[in-house]
Amino acid sequence: MFVRDLWYPVMWSEELKPGQLLARRVLDEPLVFFRSPQGDAAALFDMCPHRQVPLHLGRVLPGGQLQCGYHGLEFAADGRCTRNPHGGPIASGLKVRSYPVLEKHTLVWAWMGDAPPDAASIPDFGLMDERPDGLMRGRSYLHIAANYLLVADNLLDLSHANYLHEGILGLPEHSAAQVSVEQVGDTVTCQRFMPGVPIARMHDLMYRQDGQPIDMWNRVRWDPPGCLILTHGFARPGGADPFEFSAVHLLTPESEASTHYSYGIVRTPATQDDDTVAAEVAATRKFVFEQQDRLVLEAQQRMHQAYPQAAAAPVLLSIDAASVRMRRILQRKLEAIRV
Amino acid sequence: MFVRDLWYPVMWSEELKPGQLLARRVLDEPLVFFRSPQGDAAALFDMCPHRQVPLHLGRVLPGGQLQCGYHGLEFAADGRCTRNPHGGPIASGLKVRSYPVLEKHTLVWAWMGDAPPDAASIPDFGLMDERPDGLMRGRSYLHIAANYLLVADNLLDLSHANYLHEGILGLPEHSAAQVSVEQVGDTVTCQRFMPGVPIARMHDLMYRQDGQPIDMWNRVRWDPPGCLILTHGFARPGGADPFEFSAVHLLTPESEASTHYSYGIVRTPATQDDDTVAAEVAATRKFVFEQQDRLVLEAQQRMHQAYPQAAAAPVLLSIDAASVRMRRILQRKLEAIRV
Amino acid sequence: MFVRDLWYPVMWSEELKPGQLLARRVLDEPLVFFRSPQGDAAALFDMCPHRQVPLHLGRVLPGGQLQCGYHGLEFAADGRCTRNPHGGPIASGLKVRSYPVLEKHTLVWAWMGDAPPDAASIPDFGLMDERPDGLMRGRSYLHIAANYLLVADNLLDLSHANYLHEGILGLPEHSAAQVSVEQVGDTVTCQRFMPGVPIARMHDLMYRQDGQPIDMWNRVRWDPPGCLILTHGFARPGGADPFEFSAVHLLTPESEASTHYSYGIVRTPATQDDDTVAAEVAATRKFVFEQQDRLVLEAQQRMHQAYPQAAAAPVLLSIDAASVRMRRILQRKLEAIRV
Repeated sequence: MFVRDLWYPVMWSEELKPGQLLARRVLDEPLVFFRSPQGDAAALFDMCPHRQVPLHLGRVLPGGQLQCGYHGLEFAADGRCTRNPHGGPIASGLKVRSYPVLEKHTLVWAWMGDAPPDAASIPDFGLMDERPDGLMRGRSYLHIAANYLLVADNLLDLSHANYLHEGILGLPEHSAAQVSVEQVGDTVTCQRFMPGVPIARMHDLMYRQDGQPIDMWNRVRWDPPGCLILTHGFARPGGADPFEFSAVHLLTPESEASTHYSYGIVRTPATQDDDTVAAEVAATRKFVFEQQDRLVLEAQQRMHQAYPQAAAAPVLLSIDAASVRMRRILQRKLEAIRV
Repeated sequence: MFVRDLWYPVMWSEELKPGQLLARRVLDEPLVFFRSPQGDAAALFDMCPHRQVPLHLGRVLPGGQLQCGYHGLEFAADGRCTRNPHGGPIASGLKVRSYPVLEKHTLVWAWMGDAPPDAASIPDFGLMDERPDGLMRGRSYLHIAANYLLVADNLLDLSHANYLHEGILGLPEHSAAQVSVEQVGDTVTCQRFMPGVPIARMHDLMYRQDGQPIDMWNRVRWDPPGCLILTHGFARPGGADPFEFSAVHLLTPESEASTHYSYGIVRTPATQDDDTVAAEVAATRKFVFEQQDRLVLEAQQRMHQAYPQAAAAPVLLSIDAASVRMRRILQRKLEAIRV
Repeated sequence: MFVRDLWYPVMWSEELKPGQLLARRVLDEPLVFFRSPQGDAAALFDMCPHRQVPLHLGRVLPGGQLQCGYHGLEFAADGRCTRNPHGGPIASGLKVRSYPVLEKHTLVWAWMGDAPPDAASIPDFGLMDERPDGLMRGRSYLHIAANYLLVADNLLDLSHANYLHEGILGLPEHSAAQVSVEQVGDTVTCQRFMPGVPIARMHDLMYRQDGQPIDMWNRVRWDPPGCLILTHGFARPGGADPFEFSAVHLLTPESEASTHYSYGIVRTPATQDDDTVAAEVAATRKFVFEQQDRLVLEAQQRMHQAYPQAAAAPVLLSIDAASVRMRRILQRKLEAIRV
């Protein structure tokens, strides 16, 4: 069950090339994305009403119509059939569902609901906009065979880094953090403060602390459906030389059991100035997300499918407070629909 | 749901080698085919009644019996158990269902029904018989993960070539064809006439028109369950130098979602006289069927399974008239059984 | 449906290395095996009650606790949570099911029932214990995608070797054996005597009969759930130079449709004295089990799933007497539970 009246961050804008068709399943519905000759993104239900062949097997015509690859029917971005080359009237049933699409903050967002779309409800990801100071760096896509809420749980509770990414992104000593969770409207923020702790390898690389103790904090901001900003902060013990960097994580359900996961990182002086450091940070992030998180999340998903009763009654810990808030917000939205 | 009281064209005769067992699933039933010492083809349900091991894992004995590979029970072509090497009486339950099999027109046909088989109901494919003029060429087998009716739809409506095989076998200009559909008994024939049109690459190769406009026509004959002859004709504008060649397409359901697809082509002067042309025509046909048609048909099948309501209510076009006839004929046969 | 109050032979002791976690599904339940610092084997249900991640993705701590790889919760061998590094009380629900485990006869046995485990009920496999005479040789593991009873049927009725392994382990002439089946308690023994028969290749290799006729016998002992000893015997016609060797076969259901199959062989003078013969015997056994038996058993399993009615009503032969005994014993145990 998904909340439909939301903007879903389906892909990075740069993934949708002019003149190409890109198929991506969203909320378990097959969608095909393409651009008009003017560059505007559009999305249609990815099935021709004539013979049910996926439209992404066709092509975009110079005029911007999507032509079915089987018998040449043409559809406009709003889903109307604009041409049947075999003659005869165009039956009223010859149309395809069209989805509102917006581009903002270097992402393509699709509105999956029946209610009128509300552009203002896209959360602020202005930190991803290209900026004169060139601090933006790196956008990636990852497919994970797990429900998007399991990925969001993972990101809302960074204590997992102390074990799953031990030595690389966290250390067991970080588990004695001071944690606070705050909710404003539908935005949940989780903060962790860890004074005078040893530093893990990737952060040492970026902060050049050479293994000395440090004050460390992080801040995770979540907005529906699965739009997160993670900010990591460091300072010399006592507060000198503070430094922060941010990463964005954007989750869209492909199905109940799989997720489109877009992630990006904002440049830091260390990664900006030193190509070797930048390459090692990028490789480490890729390893951590694709090998460690994905392995655990996909195993968790399989257990949830095999043992739905255990999945519905997890034994919660203090570290799960933000996750509980997130699930309550989504649950309330689902119930609002049913009233 | 399949019509059972029909001859199904299961394989080319040359595929069934003497002394070998060939397993092929037909109408979702596992069958094993083999030949007697005299060369007669036979088919049994592919499961030993003792321990349910597939009989195709055994072997054909010199006397023509099929010996189970697990414990050596022997079965005759009519399904009776003729020997239990471990002693004791042969229980009445030790038998296997046998299917009537015929060879005609270089094909092995199996009768899947309970009604007495009617050899005369095999449609005429005499054009495939070996002939003194040596005009026969090329028999191939293709497995397609789609219902056999989707493959038949594809063949009954050749307008799809104008888009799916654009440039190779058809052109958008061919969509303005004059189409007529005719039904005689259970035989449906669809004819298309396209005067003064440009010629596509493979046909140019065979007809040596060097890209000049041409008069073009084709004729598709369908007989139950999925036995088709496609004839393509060409002439200089006005009617000079007429030329025709034919291809046969024989479909047997493996299951509701997959098809055994046998296809063959009758030689033409161009392909007979010029080995280079013949090789290019064969390679083009293989590419078109295996890469283009199969891709679309298997995607269509997946959509039909995901969206059965859309599959049951396609928005039909004028080009679908022959397909509608075919489905009515098969539906009538199915209903006749239920009365 | 499995009999739970039994010891299951899950793996060879040597497979469970100190400091490692080994996941193995037993009776369709995910289990994780590990050793204490003292070397004692333990087994837990392979799922953390916090976030349902498999525990085998964690690690064994130096103190012997199993640490979850996601958030660092620690569990003792009895399933209690002994540490939550994130603080707060340890909720009563933070525990994992623990399974009694024993090591005996070079195997790890797990008790899957709720009744108190009875160590004395492990059948005698003393022939596998390491002995001063060094007659033990070779332990292997094989995964078979078939119900464990189909594998046991195979082993209880060695007449299949005359066809499935024809020439290698048996010959059609062996089918005229004198067979007797005996049951003592829950132990079934099947004996076959074949006087004056030709010898198959692998046995000739071990017995050096050079293809001359021989007196041959074998004896299969089965104990629940799937613990078998096969003894093969040979003598010159009339009884001179008798020779026996034994192999053990231990079956544990992974699921209703798959089996953990552990097999081992006891050394013989021929294989002990001649490395070339030993290597050929080992390679032959591997080929026979992995290529021939597995092929047939997995095909049989697929037929049983496709045709459950045929599977439930096999046409039995005289050679199936021991298999019938086995199934009755297990059926009686299942019914005893339900009373």
